Amino acid sequence: MAQFINTKENIVTEAVDGLVAASGGKLARLDGYPHIRVVVRNDWDKSKVALLSGGGSGHEPAHAGFVGEGMLTAAVCGDIFASPTVDAVLAGILAVTGPSGCLLIVKNYTGDRLNFGLAAERARQFGLNVEMVIVDDDVALPELPQARGVAGTLFVHKIAGALAENGADLKTVAAAARQVVSRTKSIGMSLSTCTIPGSPKEDRIPAGMAELGLGIHGEAGVEQVEFNGAQAAVAAMIGRLAVDMEARPHVALINNLGGTSVLEMSIILNEIRLSAIGERINHVVGPAAMMTSLDMQGFSISIYPADEAEIALLKQHTPLAAWPRISWLGQVAVQALPDGLTPVTPMPSVHKQTQEFLTRCCEILIAAENDLNALDAKSGDGDTGSTLAGAARALIGAMNRLPLADHTQLYRAIGLELSQTMGGSSGVLLAIFFAATGDAASSGLPMHEALKAGLRRMQEIGGARLGDRTMVDALAPALDALNDGPAAAARAAREGADRTASMTKANAGRAAYLNAKQLAGHVDPGAEAVARLFEHLAGWFEKAA
Amino acid sequence: MAQFINTKENIVTEAVDGLVAASGGKLARLDGYPHIRVVVRNDWDKSKVALLSGGGSGHEPAHAGFVGEGMLTAAVCGDIFASPTVDAVLAGILAVTGPSGCLLIVKNYTGDRLNFGLAAERARQFGLNVEMVIVDDDVALPELPQARGVAGTLFVHKIAGALAENGADLKTVAAAARQVVSRTKSIGMSLSTCTIPGSPKEDRIPAGMAELGLGIHGEAGVEQVEFNGAQAAVAAMIGRLAVDMEARPHVALINNLGGTSVLEMSIILNEIRLSAIGERINHVVGPAAMMTSLDMQGFSISIYPADEAEIALLKQHTPLAAWPRISWLGQVAVQALPDGLTPVTPMPSVHKQTQEFLTRCCEILIAAENDLNALDAKSGDGDTGSTLAGAARALIGAMNRLPLADHTQLYRAIGLELSQTMGGSSGVLLAIFFAATGDAASSGLPMHEALKAGLRRMQEIGGARLGDRTMVDALAPALDALNDGPAAAARAAREGADRTASMTKANAGRAAYLNAKQLAGHVDPGAEAVARLFEHLAGWFEKAA
Repeated sequence: MAQFINTKENIVTEAVDGLVAASGGKLARLDGYPHIRVVVRNDWDKSKVALLSGGGSGHEPAHAGFVGEGMLTAAVCGDIFASPTVDAVLAGILAVTGPSGCLLIVKNYTGDRLNFGLAAERARQFGLNVEMVIVDDDVALPELPQARGVAGTLFVHKIAGALAENGADLKTVAAAARQVVSRTKSIGMSLSTCTIPGSPKEDRIPAGMAELGLGIHGEAGVEQVEFNGAQAAVAAMIGRLAVDMEARPHVALINNLGGTSVLEMSIILNEIRLSAIGERINHVVGPAAMMTSLDMQGFSISIYPADEAEIALLKQHTPLAAWPRISWLGQVAVQALPDGLTPVTPMPSVHKQTQEFLTRCCEILIAAENDLNALDAKSGDGDTGSTLAGAARALIGAMNRLPLADHTQLYRAIGLELSQTMGGSSGVLLAIFFAATGDAASSGLPMHEALKAGLRRMQEIGGARLGDRTMVDALAPALDALNDGPAAAARAAREGADRTASMTKANAGRAAYLNAKQLAGHVDPGAEAVARLFEHLAGWFEKAA
Repeated sequence: MAQFINTKENIVTEAVDGLVAASGGKLARLDGYPHIRVVVRNDWDKSKVALLSGGGSGHEPAHAGFVGEGMLTAAVCGDIFASPTVDAVLAGILAVTGPSGCLLIVKNYTGDRLNFGLAAERARQFGLNVEMVIVDDDVALPELPQARGVAGTLFVHKIAGALAENGADLKTVAAAARQVVSRTKSIGMSLSTCTIPGSPKEDRIPAGMAELGLGIHGEAGVEQVEFNGAQAAVAAMIGRLAVDMEARPHVALINNLGGTSVLEMSIILNEIRLSAIGERINHVVGPAAMMTSLDMQGFSISIYPADEAEIALLKQHTPLAAWPRISWLGQVAVQALPDGLTPVTPMPSVHKQTQEFLTRCCEILIAAENDLNALDAKSGDGDTGSTLAGAARALIGAMNRLPLADHTQLYRAIGLELSQTMGGSSGVLLAIFFAATGDAASSGLPMHEALKAGLRRMQEIGGARLGDRTMVDALAPALDALNDGPAAAARAAREGADRTASMTKANAGRAAYLNAKQLAGHVDPGAEAVARLFEHLAGWFEKAA
């Protein structure tokens, strides 16, 4: 299983260096590589109670990502899923602990308890005031007295961290931390195991199953359960959390175990809101990756009945990006749809010449159907003719609801008709062309200038430039020449269309996916349609003159 | 491929509801489900320029996660990887656009261009001032004029968003956005394809390969390259970004495509810092999941040569948790290791009685080696006797460096010896016992009280309570009885040890993993060791008396 690492040995030191370098100077590491990997606040004056946490790596951003103002003072990083040594913990304690003492926040794993515990003893022999709190929030096995410490640890970091930042003494900070630990409950669920660097991925969870009640070290969950979607998954977890849950408002911390998409996490959040305990959840932290298990496709829910003072501490500012902030959880606010989504239908009006002209244009396109389809078959899927002819037929059918006597409104109305009857990109682009032309005309521009404004907008949206082998190659020169009369425009359109046969690199539209050999010698069907339109119209104007 | 979703049809609406409900009242959605999924600021008074973005879903937190103060005003959410409809975009524009107008920030995909483009035309017909900027930051195919829009879009959201929040007019905001677009470059790399809900996962990338230059819709990368770790991967990407890169300081935005672990992202950040362009990167945004491709195990790097004014806009406060904040990128700050890691060796001293007593204790444990191993074989791996005997032999060997005449120092020194010679949890726990006892003795407590303080600390760290079938079951009653003399202590220890034979539920230590039948009738070897120690010492004191 490939991962974005270099050597397995340097994973933790490289990750720590990345974090520290990008901290804007707020973090440092101790000079103890490779064995001592301790991240400390670089702006720390030891005047307040220091908070230390740590443990095995692989749970990022925990714990080093939470070192900073208002949270941890230092984090001691072990190898992947392995406790740091006593020396590393001691180095961390000695580096940041001043006269106010320090609190060690340790998750309930034997290695962490022992190593942090012995380091605390050694630190006390230096006269330091060291307290330790052990987090055991996992309710996966309620009868086990040695419950694991998982993402609920973040509640401890934030509440104790904010208190310490505010200058509380060690006794107060430790008591607050123990209060949080005593009432925090967490449970996890996963659809995959995590990928431990250098090891093949364990394929433990069968298709259609999920693991419920898992820790954060890749160990198996308490049980495998059938997986029937997000709602049932959340309900199963809520069932565990609801046992002995207090009838008070709670904060839910929604933790991505590493590989779950942000989209899924929002759906999970929504299910928690709608769950059996949803009404007792009035604040949320996350969803975010806070205490991960490498790339595990899973998540955990932690709940804590914070009181008002604790909510204030959870809300207190910290500059750390890894802390996703707390929000109150409410109903989904819904705003009414704005007026104006149903397009205003223009008042139909009668104008014989305009009707004849428009009908003539449509007939030209209908007559060209087979030729244009044949041309399109060389470079596309052979339907340009049918698409244009279909739109033309629909426009003839709509003639009696068009504002034929008001040319400004007429452009917009044609655009609207095309957007509703003509599928695909070309329908939208022509709708934009006519709508923008109408806009320009309504501001008083002469017709050929309004048409050019429409073309500009269409090009801006469609991205086609001259030479890109699209209808623009005929339309742009035709509009440029229109001031010199219909015949000049027709000649320009024809020359432009013919030039597309030698354009062997399409940059826009579907032909962009074809190679030069497939395109050479064939006129672009859109450009050909424009040329035929102008040529026939020129002949018609001539006859009429 | 299982995912935490319910039905494919409701993915986007459910995710939007989750986001809106947990926004603390700051967001709302328009009442247009199921087809119109627009997230808007609920605290918006239309007095400033509105910023809208959107596109297909599957890129969370983009775009709805960036709706809020100082960034977007609204996000229009299509189906997974599919552009939203013209009506949905128009609804968003009409809902948030006031007299100051709005800017549409659109990634360069045909569907988005067309639908946002036509919606803009329709909105203009209501007299609204609508500008549109198309983001095309992907440099995967430098010769393609239609480059894709990827994570560099976040620079536009943040810079234009901060300007709009500060009250800049539409012209200024749009110009700033276009300036960012014109100079932002991005490139992505991935080790896996993304899992599109309802579709089997495409297994396109062979083992040992990575895709370079990929978009965010699961489409194949421009090329497959050999994957040789994080350093080479970053170097390949930097090679593309470095082409025509200005010799000015840049901001790098490091984007998790969804399924990459936080640990890997820190290593990637470290490699960017150390790369060929590292010296030109003086700020970073992230690493964080900002513009994802569902659960893809990949990342992208975007660079932009922001000037000072733009850096200030990037730094400007936004309450959005999805925006990971910008930090300057510097060297890794390193602090010296603290003094005190090497334990102070106590001054050796001579004290005949103490030496005899200690030696006697050690000999008792050495003599019990085989018996204790046999007992341990019933409930563990049969080495308790050898572990204790080994530690005892080592202690005898260390006798001449112990501070035998200073009992307070002696406890600590024994703890230190045990922590260095005795492996495993029990070594650490006994070290903690003796160190804590020494601490208590140094504060003036009488010996039996100091020993009890040591026991309490050992229990706190080790987690063993009375009845948990450990040495505590003999040691605790023995220390309680010690005030009544050695004989009373010995009786209490023996009774306690014998009781462990009927404790069929171990809650701490290795025996916790065995069942009742395996444990019944066997005394715990640790408790037995304590009982033998006290019994023999009682006899010895009797004889000595």
